[in-house]
Amino acid sequence: ANTILSSFGTTIFETMSRLAQAHGAVNLGQGFPEGLEPADVVAKASEALVSGPNQYPSMMGTPDLRQAIARHEARFYGVELDPMAEVMVTSGATEALAACLFGLIEPGDEVVLIEPLYDSYLPIIRRAGGIAKLVRVEPPHWELPRQALAEAFSPKTKLMILNTPMNPSGKVWTADELAFLAGLLERFDAYCVCDEVYEHLVYDGRRHVPLMTLPGLRPRCLKVGSAGKIFSLTGWKVGWVIAAPEVLVPVAKAHQYLTFTTPPNLQAAVAWGLGKEDSYYDGLAAMLAERRDRLATGLRGVGFEVMEAGGSYFLTADFRPLGFDGDDAAFCRHITEKAGVTAIPVSAFYQGGDVGHFARFCFAKTESAIDEAITRLRRYF
Amino acid sequence: ANTILSSFGTTIFETMSRLAQAHGAVNLGQGFPEGLEPADVVAKASEALVSGPNQYPSMMGTPDLRQAIARHEARFYGVELDPMAEVMVTSGATEALAACLFGLIEPGDEVVLIEPLYDSYLPIIRRAGGIAKLVRVEPPHWELPRQALAEAFSPKTKLMILNTPMNPSGKVWTADELAFLAGLLERFDAYCVCDEVYEHLVYDGRRHVPLMTLPGLRPRCLKVGSAGKIFSLTGWKVGWVIAAPEVLVPVAKAHQYLTFTTPPNLQAAVAWGLGKEDSYYDGLAAMLAERRDRLATGLRGVGFEVMEAGGSYFLTADFRPLGFDGDDAAFCRHITEKAGVTAIPVSAFYQGGDVGHFARFCFAKTESAIDEAITRLRRYF
Ligand SMILES: CSCCC(=O)C(=O)O
Ligand SMILES: CSCCC(=O)C(=O)O
Repeated sequence: ANTILSSFGTTIFETMSRLAQAHGAVNLGQGFPEGLEPADVVAKASEALVSGPNQYPSMMGTPDLRQAIARHEARFYGVELDPMAEVMVTSGATEALAACLFGLIEPGDEVVLIEPLYDSYLPIIRRAGGIAKLVRVEPPHWELPRQALAEAFSPKTKLMILNTPMNPSGKVWTADELAFLAGLLERFDAYCVCDEVYEHLVYDGRRHVPLMTLPGLRPRCLKVGSAGKIFSLTGWKVGWVIAAPEVLVPVAKAHQYLTFTTPPNLQAAVAWGLGKEDSYYDGLAAMLAERRDRLATGLRGVGFEVMEAGGSYFLTADFRPLGFDGDDAAFCRHITEKAGVTAIPVSAFYQGGDVGHFARFCFAKTESAIDEAITRLRRYF
Repeated sequence: ANTILSSFGTTIFETMSRLAQAHGAVNLGQGFPEGLEPADVVAKASEALVSGPNQYPSMMGTPDLRQAIARHEARFYGVELDPMAEVMVTSGATEALAACLFGLIEPGDEVVLIEPLYDSYLPIIRRAGGIAKLVRVEPPHWELPRQALAEAFSPKTKLMILNTPMNPSGKVWTADELAFLAGLLERFDAYCVCDEVYEHLVYDGRRHVPLMTLPGLRPRCLKVGSAGKIFSLTGWKVGWVIAAPEVLVPVAKAHQYLTFTTPPNLQAAVAWGLGKEDSYYDGLAAMLAERRDRLATGLRGVGFEVMEAGGSYFLTADFRPLGFDGDDAAFCRHITEKAGVTAIPVSAFYQGGDVGHFARFCFAKTESAIDEAITRLRRYF
């Protein structure tokens, strides 16, 4: 077996979900939503299975879905795309990321990453022969260290990955920060893989700004989107990449050999769903903001110090006020086993693993799950 | 963009399907079946969408499907598996192959391949840093060059890929050939990725023999299976890898970062479908054998020399008797544009591209599509 991947463990999300199940814990760990699936989108997929087709669609995605994605970008961000040349459907955002990285990175290329980072980034970069240059933002303020970021870039930088809204921090990058990133990308002639899967999950009147919409940045940006997150259907594994035609070509070459294509019936339902009215998108964000507040209030009541989250499914909480004697990995195991509530250690999102007293709680769960989790934590602490 | 993948074109299957569509041709090119989808399996998936869950299942696949795959292997091949340790579900066989190759190959490792070969093998091997060692079987007899194969192995050989039943040749490897391969794998301590997606598509009383069932070979073999091929539902992209627990570990590490998981509803329907009675499996092979014979007879009537095919969806036909002046790529374009029938050039399955007078026809199509194709070819030639 190869030594590149063996240095990485099983993904923390799977590990904690298994532990939650083993202990009958309320799972506020892995980021999947509960009780938010739109029944009409599900019904469309169910019908499209029966009516067919059930064979390979185009490897780039069905024309319907590519057009729907292009309309979505025009509607929300004013970006005009050629759906046949600038949009590619993938088997989830994870595959979209892998296709971008395998398509663009050559052995020896440098890749700038901002910790905390989603756990597929580093293994795929290493497997593609890339060299990661890490800078970090940290709780409680998740502030961008501009100097360090500028120093991470070099003439060997092929690309950076930006995740906004950001997992696990819930940080929504500001216009000013994005402009700073944009300057570096232009100065070093680099691409940016923009992991924007939480684009519609932004709260308190914030608006998501795709990096692609900044002046001059369109040809440098590969935007990764996710139907799983837009429709609370993470199991469907329908995602996409949006990029300039000549940038999409090598990414499509990777995609064709990673999965080739994605179920046409699920694509049909997603294409239909993307046309839903504004009230759907606004309603989703409103429901999630409510759940976020419910969980934040509950956790504060238990004694956690809870960071702000402007977007995503996640709250980060400092557990030091509870007097727990151990690091975040130990804490998350401990509350799973002893209190029956599962969270994800934030250090799992840092290579060094040294940001050791924060736990990530997912609030995209039912109100009763959130309430039960709080009751259990209250009882235990 | 990276130079590793840019040397590869768009997959020939997609290219020819697009050309077929542009010219309103009967598409006997890309290997997807028509008119064979089992309605009950489709209904199960349709129901499982509505009843849910629709969130991430376990990255290894749903326990139900893993158990169903283990029962399938026991029933057809007498192989007893631990479903939780030796079976992993993937987003199609293409992803299964990518996970095996990215999981096992280190830069500099040698990989033995037998041409003609499926078009994802080489790009992924190169992307993983592997060095391909090619030997070839050729029409009309597709005979294994034992000496050349033995010489392709070296102490640096990490693995070989075996495709049986083989695409595009339709060759079902004999017990004697498999035993020879097994000897080499043991002598050079190598793995074998066994692409056995056509396992149930074997004809004329032949039986598929998984390489894994040969004495001592179990720990060396990674079997790739495909629900798309077993249930004529290629769009679903449900596949799997079967391997010894310690071999599956690195492959799962690759899989978790390629797609992470596969739609649970489709998995539920496949799990149910695998339990179908023998009459389903036998009936599928019988229907396909009939279509193969129908197409072979038709092509011979047109003037082609048609090779035997013991398995798979494909017939290989020598077009020299028709007096066409050009290579197989030109021939396949020509009949698409002029006769309205699409086939795949066999040279696309060889690096050298020099096996130049054979076309691959897919017979997994409706009888009326086959008849219409023959009518058109007859009219043209
Ligand atoms: C692919 S499983 C992880 C889901 C997720 O995005 C998260 O929990 O951070
Ligand atoms: C993944 S598209 C190709 C389908 C196929 O296996 C073939 O036509 O050979």
